[in-house]
Amino acid sequence: MKLYNYFRSSASFRVRIALGLKGLDYDYAVVHLTRDGGQQFTAEFRALSADALIPVLDDEGAVLTQSLAIIEYLDETHPQPPLLPATPLERAYVRACALAIACEIHPLNNLRVLRYLVHELAASEEQKNAWYRHWVEQGLGALEARLVAERRCGRHVLGDAVTLADVVLVPQIFNAQRFDCRLDHVPTIMGIFARCMELPAFIAAQPSRQPDAQ
Amino acid sequence: MKLYNYFRSSASFRVRIALGLKGLDYDYAVVHLTRDGGQQFTAEFRALSADALIPVLDDEGAVLTQSLAIIEYLDETHPQPPLLPATPLERAYVRACALAIACEIHPLNNLRVLRYLVHELAASEEQKNAWYRHWVEQGLGALEARLVAERRCGRHVLGDAVTLADVVLVPQIFNAQRFDCRLDHVPTIMGIFARCMELPAFIAAQPSRQPDAQ
Repeated sequence: MKLYNYFRSSASFRVRIALGLKGLDYDYAVVHLTRDGGQQFTAEFRALSADALIPVLDDEGAVLTQSLAIIEYLDETHPQPPLLPATPLERAYVRACALAIACEIHPLNNLRVLRYLVHELAASEEQKNAWYRHWVEQGLGALEARLVAERRCGRHVLGDAVTLADVVLVPQIFNAQRFDCRLDHVPTIMGIFARCMELPAFIAAQPSRQPDAQ
Repeated sequence: MKLYNYFRSSASFRVRIALGLKGLDYDYAVVHLTRDGGQQFTAEFRALSADALIPVLDDEGAVLTQSLAIIEYLDETHPQPPLLPATPLERAYVRACALAIACEIHPLNNLRVLRYLVHELAASEEQKNAWYRHWVEQGLGALEARLVAERRCGRHVLGDAVTLADVVLVPQIFNAQRFDCRLDHVPTIMGIFARCMELPAFIAAQPSRQPDAQ
């Protein structure tokens, strides 16, 4: 398998964690989002990913896109350890927690969105950062409220086993910390984050450990 | 089952289509996003959905959030007709097409995001509409390129059967039309849209047919 990705991309980070949890080796292909005007825009990469988005997983010639779809695929083709729980209701809960980040927080803070704010809407650095923090702090606050209300957390989002929800949560916290977002209102989430970051697959997948981290 | 939703919400529209395709009856509970300052912000609704987002599905007391998680749940608990194909690779493709809309287009054009642009960034009506159209036109263009390159379309996104990808695509086109987005660059998508809109479940789920459409 070959993963086209970038050390700082949180969607890439999610897939690296999942590959690590499954114990799968992969080639690391760098798609540097800011070098050469953005390596995601080359014709070569666009032939793999029409929307110029990473990560892309090449599994023996089959090209997979969208981090959540890739992780579900890895979970179906390499079931151990499972990243989704056994019952439909629990799976729906784990997917909803993952989507609360992947659909409600992360898309608003993508590099291309921040660029649009600056270039098209003339947002100042301060306004850009306020935008970033607003969606992260509000989105994580809503997820915290859900986790507390549901009372289903153990060491992780659902009980004591790592699931897709933890895999999506951890990269979002890295982003939040990088942009100095407030996190003191989400203690449940930060506890889960700390416990994830004790695990080898999460440690190895973090941005600073990647070959393109300079 | 009871669906908390709003006629114009495209995430709600997705779930209504899925319920219709599965032949499931449900109570329609209106959460009007602009009346009473936004009925999603009431304490009663927030007890169901901490992030004040619709749709929410109540299945005999089990509360489900996030439209894609709800649809996967419905597909697992009511397998006929399937909304995901049989093989992991095909499932990954269908999920990726759905996520290309649900993560890359729709989150940027949510009501709360448009409000932030206007209220916090002082965007003009023209700038707000340009923002909306930019993400819709670019996102659909990228999806069109993918569909053309993959050559897997038949009557629908994958072959001739309706999948999750069609269920997510159709509401996005309704939104695009409502905001006068350019659509002449996505003929493959518009063909699929037209064929979906011949089917009773899609027709019945459209905004104008809902009880709160005034």
